[in-house]
Amino acid sequence: MAEVVLLDFWGSPFGMRARIALAEKGVKYEYKEEHLLTGKKTPLLLETNPVHKKIPVLIHNGKPISESLVIVQYIEDAWSDTAPLLPADPYGRSQARFWADFVDKKIYDQGKKIWANKAGEVQEAGKKELIESLKLLEGELGEKPFFGGETIGYVDVALVPFYTWFYSFETIGNFSIQAECPKLIEWVKRCLERESVSKSLVDPEKVYVDLILVLKKMYGYE
Amino acid sequence: MAEVVLLDFWGSPFGMRARIALAEKGVKYEYKEEHLLTGKKTPLLLETNPVHKKIPVLIHNGKPISESLVIVQYIEDAWSDTAPLLPADPYGRSQARFWADFVDKKIYDQGKKIWANKAGEVQEAGKKELIESLKLLEGELGEKPFFGGETIGYVDVALVPFYTWFYSFETIGNFSIQAECPKLIEWVKRCLERESVSKSLVDPEKVYVDLILVLKKMYGYE
Repeated sequence: MAEVVLLDFWGSPFGMRARIALAEKGVKYEYKEEHLLTGKKTPLLLETNPVHKKIPVLIHNGKPISESLVIVQYIEDAWSDTAPLLPADPYGRSQARFWADFVDKKIYDQGKKIWANKAGEVQEAGKKELIESLKLLEGELGEKPFFGGETIGYVDVALVPFYTWFYSFETIGNFSIQAECPKLIEWVKRCLERESVSKSLVDPEKVYVDLILVLKKMYGYE
Repeated sequence: MAEVVLLDFWGSPFGMRARIALAEKGVKYEYKEEHLLTGKKTPLLLETNPVHKKIPVLIHNGKPISESLVIVQYIEDAWSDTAPLLPADPYGRSQARFWADFVDKKIYDQGKKIWANKAGEVQEAGKKELIESLKLLEGELGEKPFFGGETIGYVDVALVPFYTWFYSFETIGNFSIQAECPKLIEWVKRCLERESVSKSLVDPEKVYVDLILVLKKMYGYE
């Protein structure tokens, strides 16, 4: 096994976080795809993440780490001599952790209310809540180029992967995130200018066709 | 305002985490009670945690920090010269973060299935899930005195406050956590031998009578 291995699934925003953080630190790794849409999990996934049985799992020198934000913090700690993702001062660190935690508590679940439902009350609530969360994040970004300030940081890494799901939310929910949060979309574009991000994210239209529509069919969400 | 202020509610396991961490570090602070059972929140809470509007909030030199695990990590970072709560090595840190996150994702919600429901399917599911989570934690503890090893650490601080709610879970759910997880209860007792813990936790019977039964009545969970 390579020194650094990432068990991942191509369309996972959580996996993309690990990919961006590794790219920012310049860490070479072996990418191993879990073919989650087949409904099967590899013995390696079950063995390395027996508690949650979820990707991403980072395996460094044979030792596994799970949960995407835990992985990103591990990457920050283990390759601390380059491209810091968290500020040095305790208060700045706490604020980055607060907003990354906010992303974790809100965005996936609010988005799922949109894509996993037909037009109706629950979907409308999802749209309203998601826009509210994104506007709060836009407020936190303010006039800074990145959440991390002049360069990409922990909150940027936590949030930008969800951009790859925005097209699905918008197409299914029939609304425009760009119209509601133009500054946030400008921030996405700035992130995409970085190779660490552009090479880690997947095509939003592919997410829609090859993942979200497949999941809707699989789980009868249509 | 004092240099360090904690906005808290006496019965909150999340608030107790902040209390234990501050006590471990020997930080003096002003405790300000939010009288949450009145249904009212103070202007100070709304101003310092406008996103979640929840306790605990730690205010250090006028700057607020919210979300209990973010607060505990802030306390670790800001008073780093004494009583470390996280190990120094990146892998140890990642494992502590993983298990504290596990506590956050499981224990409160599983407990609520028990106390906020009558006897029946949902309550039974809550009991089964909670025991399963506690057994996983017991396995992680293993033969160590504390999750942190020879002394109390991040996972201990994250988990031990829930002990104050166990009596409510057991009384309402008619089961015994001690019988299912005896080693975990021995660990609780070891934690309670530390003043940082014993002075930060409240009486489990008081939680039952003055909080859980009040909440059940208030929300019609009876």
